[in-house]
Amino acid sequence: MTTTARTPVTVLGLGEMGTALATAFLDGGHPTTVWNRTRDRTGPLVAKGARAAATVAEAVAASPLIVVNVKGNDVARELLESAGEAITGRAVLNLTDGTSAEARSLAGWAADHDVEYLHGQLMTIAPGIGHPGTTVFLGGSPALAERLAPELALLGGKTGLVSEDPGVPVLYGMAVHGTMWGALNGFLHAAAILTSEGLAVERFLDHAGPSVTAMLSQFPSIAGEVDRADYAAEYGALRHHLPSVSDLVAESRDHGVATALADHTLELVSTAVAEGHDGDNYSRIVESFRRTR
Amino acid sequence: MTTTARTPVTVLGLGEMGTALATAFLDGGHPTTVWNRTRDRTGPLVAKGARAAATVAEAVAASPLIVVNVKGNDVARELLESAGEAITGRAVLNLTDGTSAEARSLAGWAADHDVEYLHGQLMTIAPGIGHPGTTVFLGGSPALAERLAPELALLGGKTGLVSEDPGVPVLYGMAVHGTMWGALNGFLHAAAILTSEGLAVERFLDHAGPSVTAMLSQFPSIAGEVDRADYAAEYGALRHHLPSVSDLVAESRDHGVATALADHTLELVSTAVAEGHDGDNYSRIVESFRRTR
Ligand SMILES: NC(=O)c1ccc[n+]([C@@H]2O[C@H](COP(=O)([O-])OP(=O)(O)OC[C@H]3O[C@@H](n4cnc5c(N)ncnc54)[C@H](OP(=O)(O)O)[C@@H]3O)[C@@H](O)[C@H]2O)c1
Ligand SMILES: NC(=O)c1ccc[n+]([C@@H]2O[C@H](COP(=O)([O-])OP(=O)(O)OC[C@H]3O[C@@H](n4cnc5c(N)ncnc54)[C@H](OP(=O)(O)O)[C@@H]3O)[C@@H](O)[C@H]2O)c1
Repeated sequence: MTTTARTPVTVLGLGEMGTALATAFLDGGHPTTVWNRTRDRTGPLVAKGARAAATVAEAVAASPLIVVNVKGNDVARELLESAGEAITGRAVLNLTDGTSAEARSLAGWAADHDVEYLHGQLMTIAPGIGHPGTTVFLGGSPALAERLAPELALLGGKTGLVSEDPGVPVLYGMAVHGTMWGALNGFLHAAAILTSEGLAVERFLDHAGPSVTAMLSQFPSIAGEVDRADYAAEYGALRHHLPSVSDLVAESRDHGVATALADHTLELVSTAVAEGHDGDNYSRIVESFRRTR
Repeated sequence: MTTTARTPVTVLGLGEMGTALATAFLDGGHPTTVWNRTRDRTGPLVAKGARAAATVAEAVAASPLIVVNVKGNDVARELLESAGEAITGRAVLNLTDGTSAEARSLAGWAADHDVEYLHGQLMTIAPGIGHPGTTVFLGGSPALAERLAPELALLGGKTGLVSEDPGVPVLYGMAVHGTMWGALNGFLHAAAILTSEGLAVERFLDHAGPSVTAMLSQFPSIAGEVDRADYAAEYGALRHHLPSVSDLVAESRDHGVATALADHTLELVSTAVAEGHDGDNYSRIVESFRRTR
């Protein structure tokens, strides 16, 4: 039996997610140093073998790899700055949620301070950390991502670099979440209509599962239409959607359910039709979102 | 070799969809009579062996099963009424899109006229008719659905009765479409952000496909939460969604993309959080849709 020496890792921030991250590094056999503003939260990790540092600077000095996971990138930057000289020459993996502009700004700060930087967008809730199906989108230096491959793999089986630009993983995460909120809102709006008649949503899904899944199979072709700005439809054009969207508005009203969501879809579709795009696919609607209002 | 005599079928309405339906019955070996307001459109079907009727009454008299597929249920009713006495004792399968109220009203008309009635919600575009994966939700008499099983199977492999209530297939269809429009809007809104930076949507999907698919795997548990009105979250509660939705609004603005869609999601989530539901799952949002505004 041979043992490979594992890279020491420091985790700054031990909330719900930071605790899961530190646990993954501990379970992976990495000497793990932890720091949290509220020191109490280090207890369970120390019990598992982590070392609790008294200050950020001490925590940063303990490892070549610093993982940051706190509430917002303003806090992330504040912590990294508070480490002072100790940060020089280290690698930072920032897994804090925020905007692409924040990720790019922190990457700029890192470059100015001789710090290697990777930005990661976690696509899971805390219990998903370490699972084979878990995705983490990464942006930054390919060389660093390659060097950290064993540590990054501990986060989830589908962790990978999507761009050298640290803003891109954030935008990818937004795009998944935006699609998810859209689908959830549409689904829950429909659930409000169904349940207003006493119809069970689970029973609906038993019947409709394949139809709901089928709708996702359209995404790649829609993506291609957007990329080529070629929206021409052979079947199922916007003129066919229009009466059905109107029906959804009517059905919402008839069932005492809020119409705002369906009204918004109706406005998108009817505007595109009024502008002469009735023969185009739904992908044409991307042009409506390109307007700032 | 034995031949079974196939039930004669009449199709009223030969638009894009009606033509596909009549073709399916012809291909299935059914003596098929067709009628369309604009008679020219019967030509290709007659060439394949259909019989074109000169009047609705003549078309209705030709078959025990009358399939209706026209532009709106007002037209469907008008046609059925125009058949006069000929309609008595026949079975009507109405595949015309509309609201659940219209479907129920037509079923009532049918009952008053000694007509057996099934309402069907087609969950495909015309080229999907007859495919094994195609769903048609049916509502109405179970005995009739059973008797027509061979004809109904010609429409799609997943054709089936979802309720004795003819309004339910319509509501199921609305629910699938509403979820689809929600997902498509969220996706195309995100596509507008990505493409504003020159990022290809197809490349995004190459990376994000599993994440987008994973989001659908939540639907059954969300459906159960709605049905039990039990929204309590262990992880991933609304308080975690709130900052991310705010980020989506900011990201939209930063990229010159319309914020209305993200604003609506933010309003839904922040209202629920302000009302004390920050520890609940996203399923709680169904309650917001239950308000009429
Ligand atoms: N939880 C999830 O399932 C999940 C999923 C995906 C992404 N994320 C992201 O992961 C990050 C952390 O989320 P979380 O759920 O772990 O949050 P959380 O449980 O609320 O923990 C927040 C963490 O940030 C620290 N913090 C807040 N303000 C601070 C300040 N001014 N100075 C120093 N530390 C401060 C907290 O320290 P104290 O303990 O001292 O308050 C705590 O460690 C967020 O960006 C979140 O969006 C979380
Ligand atoms: N196309 C699809 O992929 C699709 C998918 C799902 C559901 N549907 C549903 O199927 C139904 C038909 O759609 P479609 O796409 O086939 O429409 P379409 O191509 O526009 O055809 C409309 C049909 O309705 C007839 N019609 C319209 N007004 C009429 C009137 N006043 N009196 C008599 N006939 C009239 C038309 O006759 P003329 O030829 O004389 O105009 C034509 O046969 C709709 O409810 C639609 O929502 C269609």
